[in-house]
Amino acid sequence: MNGIFVPDNKTVISYILKPSIPKGTRDFSPQEMVKRNYIFDTIRQVFRNYGYLPIETPSMENLDTLMGKYGEEGDKLIFKILNSGDFLDGVKDKDIKAMSSKELTKHISEKALRYDLTVPFARYVVQHQNDITFPFKRYQIQPVWRADRPQKGRYREFYQCDADVIGSDSLLNEVELIQIIDEVFNKLGVPVIIKLNNRKVLQGIANVFDVPVAEIATVIDKYEKIGGEGVAKELKEYDFSDAEINQLFRVLFEGEAISQAVFEEGNNEVNKIMTTCQKQLKITSKIEPDLSLARGLNYYTGSIIEVKVDRNKCKSEFTSSICGGGRYDDLTGIFGLPNISGVGISFGADRIYDVMEELNKFPEGVTGTTKVMFVNFGEKEAQYCLPIVADLRKENISTEFYPDAAKFKKQMSYANDKKIAYVVFVGADEMQKGVLKLKNMASGEEREISSGELIKHIV
Amino acid sequence: MNGIFVPDNKTVISYILKPSIPKGTRDFSPQEMVKRNYIFDTIRQVFRNYGYLPIETPSMENLDTLMGKYGEEGDKLIFKILNSGDFLDGVKDKDIKAMSSKELTKHISEKALRYDLTVPFARYVVQHQNDITFPFKRYQIQPVWRADRPQKGRYREFYQCDADVIGSDSLLNEVELIQIIDEVFNKLGVPVIIKLNNRKVLQGIANVFDVPVAEIATVIDKYEKIGGEGVAKELKEYDFSDAEINQLFRVLFEGEAISQAVFEEGNNEVNKIMTTCQKQLKITSKIEPDLSLARGLNYYTGSIIEVKVDRNKCKSEFTSSICGGGRYDDLTGIFGLPNISGVGISFGADRIYDVMEELNKFPEGVTGTTKVMFVNFGEKEAQYCLPIVADLRKENISTEFYPDAAKFKKQMSYANDKKIAYVVFVGADEMQKGVLKLKNMASGEEREISSGELIKHIV
Repeated sequence: MNGIFVPDNKTVISYILKPSIPKGTRDFSPQEMVKRNYIFDTIRQVFRNYGYLPIETPSMENLDTLMGKYGEEGDKLIFKILNSGDFLDGVKDKDIKAMSSKELTKHISEKALRYDLTVPFARYVVQHQNDITFPFKRYQIQPVWRADRPQKGRYREFYQCDADVIGSDSLLNEVELIQIIDEVFNKLGVPVIIKLNNRKVLQGIANVFDVPVAEIATVIDKYEKIGGEGVAKELKEYDFSDAEINQLFRVLFEGEAISQAVFEEGNNEVNKIMTTCQKQLKITSKIEPDLSLARGLNYYTGSIIEVKVDRNKCKSEFTSSICGGGRYDDLTGIFGLPNISGVGISFGADRIYDVMEELNKFPEGVTGTTKVMFVNFGEKEAQYCLPIVADLRKENISTEFYPDAAKFKKQMSYANDKKIAYVVFVGADEMQKGVLKLKNMASGEEREISSGELIKHIV
Repeated sequence: MNGIFVPDNKTVISYILKPSIPKGTRDFSPQEMVKRNYIFDTIRQVFRNYGYLPIETPSMENLDTLMGKYGEEGDKLIFKILNSGDFLDGVKDKDIKAMSSKELTKHISEKALRYDLTVPFARYVVQHQNDITFPFKRYQIQPVWRADRPQKGRYREFYQCDADVIGSDSLLNEVELIQIIDEVFNKLGVPVIIKLNNRKVLQGIANVFDVPVAEIATVIDKYEKIGGEGVAKELKEYDFSDAEINQLFRVLFEGEAISQAVFEEGNNEVNKIMTTCQKQLKITSKIEPDLSLARGLNYYTGSIIEVKVDRNKCKSEFTSSICGGGRYDDLTGIFGLPNISGVGISFGADRIYDVMEELNKFPEGVTGTTKVMFVNFGEKEAQYCLPIVADLRKENISTEFYPDAAKFKKQMSYANDKKIAYVVFVGADEMQKGVLKLKNMASGEEREISSGELIKHIV
């Protein structure tokens, strides 16, 4: 890279400026990584215990696999990848100048970064249907990318942790996914409310009030955001009378029944799932029906699940959802494999991280750092120490030998900064006596021991 | 997604066609994931034992962070991301028609997918220099993307597993990295040869023969590919006499010394590293100097390391490198932080996977599948079984309850396909007697036990 030496002001300045990363993306330091891995490992372990198997799909999908699956807004938020090579070749004969960005995109981009894990999973199931034993229980923990406007808690690259069962319409799958949610958040120490609804409940309501289900769902889903008055106002635009609005609110929030077949079917499903979770399995997280829950995703056809921090049980400012999911009967249909029912949940690892930081829920021991450091006093001492260091590593004790014979103070400050638990000194004296000096960095205690005793002194 | 119902042949056909993924990318099935994770976990555990800490950087970097760091060829292979929104806005007033693809790229793309982990790491170190304690030992296991022509064993998305030490010029770091290489491949069961060279050796040779080091390095690096005659032919283009070519070959392959300061310095470094590894640390992998080794990367300034399968010890067709690295004194200089020496290695997980498949080195037990499955005989049985299932999961025994009361044969064939070790039957009989029937799927043996005894029967 010769750029920096080129006598061209623009070039030089670009390298003197502090390097940066694209907005909405993040670097993760070792301290953050260890905490993030704590979350991923917890979720992964629970998924495994329930018999879900891992898959991974490529970061890039063909553009037409993704386009049209997330609505018009979603299409805009998909990161497109420029074709490589001379991508303008073949477009040259067209009137590029007259094209919109959207039109030109079709000519110069064939691939895009995945937007979620659900659509790639549906594509995977269809593509590999002959190799899959159904019901297929898979989990997938990978980043997704969205060209959303970055803001607090919203990133352009973030991880989703999904578990889905595809090829079974038993409600026991929903029960199992709720068990998983309960177990994950218990292990992480985050108290949650699991809210439950069913698309059929919404469909029943739509039937009774004679409005399209997608539209009524969108309106009542806003209840938390815009309140009862706001919702009432919007309902009036759909010709709801005051009496109808009152009736709808009693159905949604006071448990008033509607005698309507689809509504009842949905309601029964919600109740059956709740009873099994609470009575038989004694799930400790609060589970409650929330008939206003829609979660915007049009592919849900049955159960709808949403998880929020239980703010009655902890002091959290966090009101957005940290996990959610639902049942979709037609997801693989868009790729040519109809009538396969699936149900899944997705944990938002980045939001869970933020909640755990807020609630101070990461265990003390989670540091992931080196356990033992040997001070480097010079070449002879190094020769003496290296085999002992190798022995500790064989026992899976994370150990470092400081690489340079630097000043003692510098080496100790390295051990301090890295929060290393034990430091070992072997100078000329110790070598002659055939011993080591072991310092416990927390207590400050030092003791002289033989190298054979070392392992048993390290807790 | 309404596309499939639209009476437009093109749309319909695009969904009936089998869905696919971009060329050079891959889906990973559960069987592959488990094996891949075995490799990643092994490497990660070794990195940790040596005191390396994890970091992660975003998949996207600013385009100017990456461009110019991998040579002109490399620039072409970087996947660029189209700016989101109306990316042509602001370019409209320019003569797009007259622009080359390369020129237009500058106007419509600001971000790109990372090409390796080294340049993002250098950027990270400079950006976070005030928060880092040096020497900084970090590892990073993430995918990288290259728009290379896909072929057997070469993918457009693949994982690198890097460990680097930055801020120390001690050769003990090289020794440690070789220990790591040795330990990883021992654990994976792949016999390797670790080849060692030093850029100073190549510099010394270049000085003696009065040719630019980058050019002579490129020529002799081809020895394995084009043979002695091919190399000799290319050397003649640099005005080498026959006598000089013979002398150079004796230096490279027969250990003939050159009395030249830089050459000797490099040679001494190679020898010192080898002696420490072999004599003091008794590393079992074969380590050999290879003065023709250059590895093409111009940022190496000291040690150069390359690892290949030791084909004398196993029957492998694999001749390309499966791990490599070296020392670079100036890497962070391009981002404005000069004079920080670093040394690192990178494991090519995908190639290691291919080698392990070829040599059949994945351990039998590595399946990652469910341990126990309960057959579903109906609702009452489900109620009886679910708490027992929950108990097994609490003990971290991966357990499934088949979600549907499907035909017995279908459920058993699911257990078979998924290679589940134990199947539990609880029908009306067993419920009445308060017992379970446990079947060992490998031996076929069945026994009746109480639910309390279940755990101790599962190995």
